[in-house]
Amino acid sequence: MRVRWALEEVGQPYHVRLLTFKAMKEPAHLALHPFGQIPTYEEGDLALFESGAIVFHIAERHAGLLPDDANARARSIAWMFAALNTVEPPIFDRALASIFERDEPWYEQRLRALEDSIRQRLEQLSGRLGDADWLDGAFSAGDLLMVSVLLRLKGSGLLDEYPNLSAYVARGEARPAYKRAFDAQLAVFIAASTG
Amino acid sequence: MRVRWALEEVGQPYHVRLLTFKAMKEPAHLALHPFGQIPTYEEGDLALFESGAIVFHIAERHAGLLPDDANARARSIAWMFAALNTVEPPIFDRALASIFERDEPWYEQRLRALEDSIRQRLEQLSGRLGDADWLDGAFSAGDLLMVSVLLRLKGSGLLDEYPNLSAYVARGEARPAYKRAFDAQLAVFIAASTG
Repeated sequence: MRVRWALEEVGQPYHVRLLTFKAMKEPAHLALHPFGQIPTYEEGDLALFESGAIVFHIAERHAGLLPDDANARARSIAWMFAALNTVEPPIFDRALASIFERDEPWYEQRLRALEDSIRQRLEQLSGRLGDADWLDGAFSAGDLLMVSVLLRLKGSGLLDEYPNLSAYVARGEARPAYKRAFDAQLAVFIAASTG
Repeated sequence: MRVRWALEEVGQPYHVRLLTFKAMKEPAHLALHPFGQIPTYEEGDLALFESGAIVFHIAERHAGLLPDDANARARSIAWMFAALNTVEPPIFDRALASIFERDEPWYEQRLRALEDSIRQRLEQLSGRLGDADWLDGAFSAGDLLMVSVLLRLKGSGLLDEYPNLSAYVARGEARPAYKRAFDAQLAVFIAASTG
């Protein structure tokens, strides 16, 4: 979704290639992605991995995802790293724990600890966002990644504790490019589920 | 260390400002870093946070940390994101758990799970590096961040299981710029500890 969304924001066409979990661990894919994950990105001779790097590559080559002003551009890149390195880790850990540690005797205690970490980040992010629409001026690749990270919290109730963050995420989802990416992703999911 | 090392690689002078843990949570610092962490970076009117974004900013403005070829540059940026988003999280979690979860009922099991995750990443990274000196051609900001992430494993014994990664880290530490950064950081530490 992150890469699709970025491509839709800048109006670049793309072709999607789906992979089975098995194929992700095979040599052909490991040549593209050393850690056997998705997404990867191919454009001519270039093969990239890491969604942050792919979104940055798209943002650097096409107008619409990074500001022209050099300082504003650097700050937008800082928000890209912050979304992936500072905000996402406890959110990702919570998702993993809720799958793999659900039956452990310590599950409730660990879940509370992870949710405390998430709340601390959300509190700080909420404070910084205030009543602005986006994190630093106009919508940028930093917002794209931050919204996509916060979307992982849907259904957890955690986002509802911070009305300005809920509104921020809703603004992201309301963008036409997000909707096009979501619809395209959903179509693939439905086709794969029924095919 | 990451920012120091980057500045030493490109030969830019810098001034260090130390912070107490208390000052990190105060409004003056939160204005620079929304999540109340270090490092931050100031250059004229620009204030940045997130070590990945700071290293990238330095690498983009000065020769020596990113290749000139556009595709090689994009791949180097992918390794920056990979170091921070894919390799570091389980290494960081292990360090945190060994401090804060040592007395929890889940500690042994969680430590084993984290070390399995770390080994999986190291195995994949070792496979990709092979017998090359650096991850993709010449030393770049991707190597700088990857070596700095792997250095967190010193003393764990985990790195010793992958001789080519141990040698890779040693090559990083042997760089004159790394040594200058390390010596400068150590001098600050000694001064702060005895002052």
